[in-house]
Amino acid sequence: MNITVQKYGGTSVADIERIKDVARRVIRSKKPDQGLVVVVSAMEGTTDDLIRRAEEITPVPSEREMDQLISTGEQISAALLTMAIQYAGFPAVSLTGIQVGILTDDSHTKARIFKIDPRKIFELLDQDTIVVVAGFQGINLKKDVTTLGRGGSDTTAVALAAVLKAEVCEIYTDVAGVYTADPRIVPGAFKLDRISYDEMLELASLGAKVIQNRAVEFAKKFHVTLHVRSSFIEDEGTFVTEEVDTMSMEQVVIRGVTLTLDEAKLTITLVPDTPGIAAHIFKSIAQANINVDMIIQNVSEKGFTDVSFTVPRPELVKTKNLLENISGEIRAGKVTVEEKIAKVSIVGVGMKSHPGVAAIMFEALAEEGINIMMISTSEIKISCVVRAKDGERAVRALHQAFDLDRKQSK
Amino acid sequence: MNITVQKYGGTSVADIERIKDVARRVIRSKKPDQGLVVVVSAMEGTTDDLIRRAEEITPVPSEREMDQLISTGEQISAALLTMAIQYAGFPAVSLTGIQVGILTDDSHTKARIFKIDPRKIFELLDQDTIVVVAGFQGINLKKDVTTLGRGGSDTTAVALAAVLKAEVCEIYTDVAGVYTADPRIVPGAFKLDRISYDEMLELASLGAKVIQNRAVEFAKKFHVTLHVRSSFIEDEGTFVTEEVDTMSMEQVVIRGVTLTLDEAKLTITLVPDTPGIAAHIFKSIAQANINVDMIIQNVSEKGFTDVSFTVPRPELVKTKNLLENISGEIRAGKVTVEEKIAKVSIVGVGMKSHPGVAAIMFEALAEEGINIMMISTSEIKISCVVRAKDGERAVRALHQAFDLDRKQSK
Repeated sequence: MNITVQKYGGTSVADIERIKDVARRVIRSKKPDQGLVVVVSAMEGTTDDLIRRAEEITPVPSEREMDQLISTGEQISAALLTMAIQYAGFPAVSLTGIQVGILTDDSHTKARIFKIDPRKIFELLDQDTIVVVAGFQGINLKKDVTTLGRGGSDTTAVALAAVLKAEVCEIYTDVAGVYTADPRIVPGAFKLDRISYDEMLELASLGAKVIQNRAVEFAKKFHVTLHVRSSFIEDEGTFVTEEVDTMSMEQVVIRGVTLTLDEAKLTITLVPDTPGIAAHIFKSIAQANINVDMIIQNVSEKGFTDVSFTVPRPELVKTKNLLENISGEIRAGKVTVEEKIAKVSIVGVGMKSHPGVAAIMFEALAEEGINIMMISTSEIKISCVVRAKDGERAVRALHQAFDLDRKQSK
Repeated sequence: MNITVQKYGGTSVADIERIKDVARRVIRSKKPDQGLVVVVSAMEGTTDDLIRRAEEITPVPSEREMDQLISTGEQISAALLTMAIQYAGFPAVSLTGIQVGILTDDSHTKARIFKIDPRKIFELLDQDTIVVVAGFQGINLKKDVTTLGRGGSDTTAVALAAVLKAEVCEIYTDVAGVYTADPRIVPGAFKLDRISYDEMLELASLGAKVIQNRAVEFAKKFHVTLHVRSSFIEDEGTFVTEEVDTMSMEQVVIRGVTLTLDEAKLTITLVPDTPGIAAHIFKSIAQANINVDMIIQNVSEKGFTDVSFTVPRPELVKTKNLLENISGEIRAGKVTVEEKIAKVSIVGVGMKSHPGVAAIMFEALAEEGINIMMISTSEIKISCVVRAKDGERAVRALHQAFDLDRKQSK
């Protein structure tokens, strides 16, 4: 039996009408002799509403009870969707994490899946029943309800696809797939038919609303083919698979251009260039639970260096205060901040085998008169920090420089 | 270890503030070396809201999914109450029906409890943790969620009290206990300190809002002492226990006077007085799922008789139409209805050993000039149907006739 796992997010089941739409879509897609498992998130707003109630009771709700509480959101949407599928004329059954047997570790609110018992689901699929699974939740060995963290329903779907050896795991969302750039910024941006797991991970800022990175990592690890597609139209979306040879045939080096506007840059000047100083700075920042993205250390001059890095903008003030304390401790210079920055990135596995990609990027930006403030590179991604006001122009320039616009006609 | 089971209904946990109140009361009542199990209903309105959503999807929701859906109401209130107890400073854990192991039959939406696994609860009580159990729900052998029907949380509480051999099962509600009559009708009505299970059952119209009859039957069967009390004041309420000898010492024959205004009376005249005719009438009515209460058949005259009975008022039109069809079939006379009736009842185990109780009742009503339209008697209850407008006056007259008013000074 071919098995397909479908996952519908909170916006797809936001109200009763949308739940009915999803039910119709599920039934339309059901083929004879195909096992269909549908993973569903809570109705949009439900989880936040439950969290708000808990916070009215206590500023520090116990995580075990929080999971017990918020897991009801998915139980509700799963039962309602099942009723809608039944009403539309197909046998269906909803199952919660405890009923499936989705075993996780003890980390309430951010649990990791250990293993999934597929027997109950196989039993139902054998009866040609559509199985609707409440996403986002599992149980630990004590039968306490656990949840998998924000976006956990993606992980549920991918994990089920892995265990059930599904042909494909379809992630339904409100966009048509993964694009080469944000179409609101680049009119010539087009939907990618197929990308690799690694590209999907690096395109997170394009895809963040589409699927959680953790689920993509899971899919990569267990070789689950993902299909990111719209729940509003019938067209195919973007397949996320292993890196395949056919890709190089396309001669497309860069798969997408992304823009991130939610970071800020800090620089600490005149840092004594002695071993362990950088470690000291970033250990202190990590202890404050601040997530550092890009780090640049300038070339040392006369025993001193400048260190720059970016953090999420909401963390800027906190980081600045911390950094000023550290500067005192290590007898460094002043701390400067640049609030209005943009991070522009190009992503593509092709760049591994195509030298000169970085040069093309820098040249394209130079031609537009855009000043590069920071650069960082990974195997399949190059990022430049530029002034915020130059961000969109940079994306358009890069999209064109890497011949992505020409594909529009396709 | 002494164990107490407490049950709080939907109005007691209607909002966040009331949940906090319940948490404070739970902790105040907690004694050292006492095991405390708290059963909680869904927050007022939650269950109806969930049912409404299901009905927006389908007019005939599957009962299995309905149970999966509405059981979340108690899971939510249990988790929130547990958080509130923890915040108020005491260790607590919430458990759903599946987590406790409350095994029921397969009758979704009205399941019967088979057995309860007490191990998880005992384990937690041994750690001096307050255990908060989501009421109203269980699971069947397939691990499908089942619910116990309206008022099912009472049954959960009593069943847990039976299995845990609890000293008492406290039913918290918005009234102070069980009264000899509705205090809004009879100013001299007083709270009973103690009544028997059978009296509680017959006083249902006084106690219906207090505890479901099914739970009282369960308590009687398993010898669970009930304590019906207010969740708003500290005073003791009414204990419901076995029928005890001390009662007769009080010389109180009648324990309470009740008034029911939600029934209507139908009469079918000139029914041929042949065997099987009554059976035919009431079988047809039962098949239409109409609940008949009192039935009176007058003495036969010349081979014909009149049959009168009462039904819930909302069923009146349906019953009248049905009865007119039956009348045609059996060649009986016309069907008359009396919409505005009141049923006045006196209840007390004492009447078993006190002859003449009925006579006192009829005399008291006669003295008030109240005409009796129907009479029915059971071992511990006598009911009279009177005109609706005479109902309250009848209650007051009977309350006085059976010396219940004098107890007010107590």
